[in-house]
Amino acid sequence: MKVGIFGTGNVGRTMAERFLADENEVMIGTRNVRNTLEREDRDNPGHLSYQEWQKKHPQIRLGTFAETAAFGDIVVLATLGNATQHAIDMAGVKNFASKIVIDMTNPLDFSNGIPPRFTGTLGNSLGEQIQKLLPEAKVVKAFNSVSVQIVVNPKREEGDPVMFIAGDDESAKQTVSEIAKKWGWKDLVDFGSITESYFLEAFAMMWIHYAFKNNSWTHAFKFLRK
Amino acid sequence: MKVGIFGTGNVGRTMAERFLADENEVMIGTRNVRNTLEREDRDNPGHLSYQEWQKKHPQIRLGTFAETAAFGDIVVLATLGNATQHAIDMAGVKNFASKIVIDMTNPLDFSNGIPPRFTGTLGNSLGEQIQKLLPEAKVVKAFNSVSVQIVVNPKREEGDPVMFIAGDDESAKQTVSEIAKKWGWKDLVDFGSITESYFLEAFAMMWIHYAFKNNSWTHAFKFLRK
Repeated sequence: MKVGIFGTGNVGRTMAERFLADENEVMIGTRNVRNTLEREDRDNPGHLSYQEWQKKHPQIRLGTFAETAAFGDIVVLATLGNATQHAIDMAGVKNFASKIVIDMTNPLDFSNGIPPRFTGTLGNSLGEQIQKLLPEAKVVKAFNSVSVQIVVNPKREEGDPVMFIAGDDESAKQTVSEIAKKWGWKDLVDFGSITESYFLEAFAMMWIHYAFKNNSWTHAFKFLRK
Repeated sequence: MKVGIFGTGNVGRTMAERFLADENEVMIGTRNVRNTLEREDRDNPGHLSYQEWQKKHPQIRLGTFAETAAFGDIVVLATLGNATQHAIDMAGVKNFASKIVIDMTNPLDFSNGIPPRFTGTLGNSLGEQIQKLLPEAKVVKAFNSVSVQIVVNPKREEGDPVMFIAGDDESAKQTVSEIAKKWGWKDLVDFGSITESYFLEAFAMMWIHYAFKNNSWTHAFKFLRK
């Protein structure tokens, strides 16, 4: 499969590595390819600069947002929530037609520092906004409620965490579920249509808020049914 | 201890039975005592009418909201979210001074049927609203994220669920934690000040939404730390 990933940060890179390890072709999308390739800054002391990371992963291509959307059978949105719409605009709506779009974004406002504020709105979740922007794409809200490290390696010492997904297209959800199962997810809950994204985004805030408050990045929720 | 409980529905009654079983004195508060005592309607086929229930539990007193707030060392808010402020107004703010107030409410709008809509607002959660209304009370947001049946009997076949609590007063949170432990809660997470109530209310929506969509009332979340 061809996978296009929007976002050159930790989330996008980790997803890219994982999809590549699964023998997919992977392209990362960015606003300006040359600027990104020249980036030597590290967003976090433990991370590589984009330049360093790209050198480690020569098989992963870097393209514009438009090239990346056109490239992917699956397009993963791993941008900051408030940057997603702009990235889609730059990519061009037509390049998403009939694609599966995995929306990992969350409505966060970092303008007052951390922990970020939640800016989700009932009836206007990011998942819904993206599906409206991309009416011919099959948007699946997924992988937004834990860190990307857990997304690609969900096995926890204390049990199997739950992943909620939502979207209007059943076959797209099925494809995303199969990807998740390959990565080790054992408890996937189809939460319904893309309008349910709001609840997935609200749920994510508990994870995110706890994470920033406690500097914990390894926690997750197991869903007890009885 | 004396426990006053606002709310004559399933939540209030179940909490009343549980506090009584723990050898507390319990009073339930209502708008109009005579009307409530005469109520023969059942809100649910499986439930007793208030009149039937009261006859089964003669030790549990029924009072006005004002009497109930004045009575309790602890006051439990188990009203519908959008009825809470009015109940507090009727009770009189002075009757809550120095009391521990356990806020179990959630910002739900049932006007369009079920599942209810979430009406929570960041920076203006119900927990915060109630603490502002009752500046001399020690409000603890707790027990809002699962059904009352799980609140009073948290043991699940599949593991120990998590309960998040929030509030400004450490000793009040300690008291609520001790009550919860007595009921079987093994994983209590102090989420911080009452301003964190928003996240507890958002978290509750995942439980509530799943419940109404799947007619499931036995699910809960276990918090995996690693």
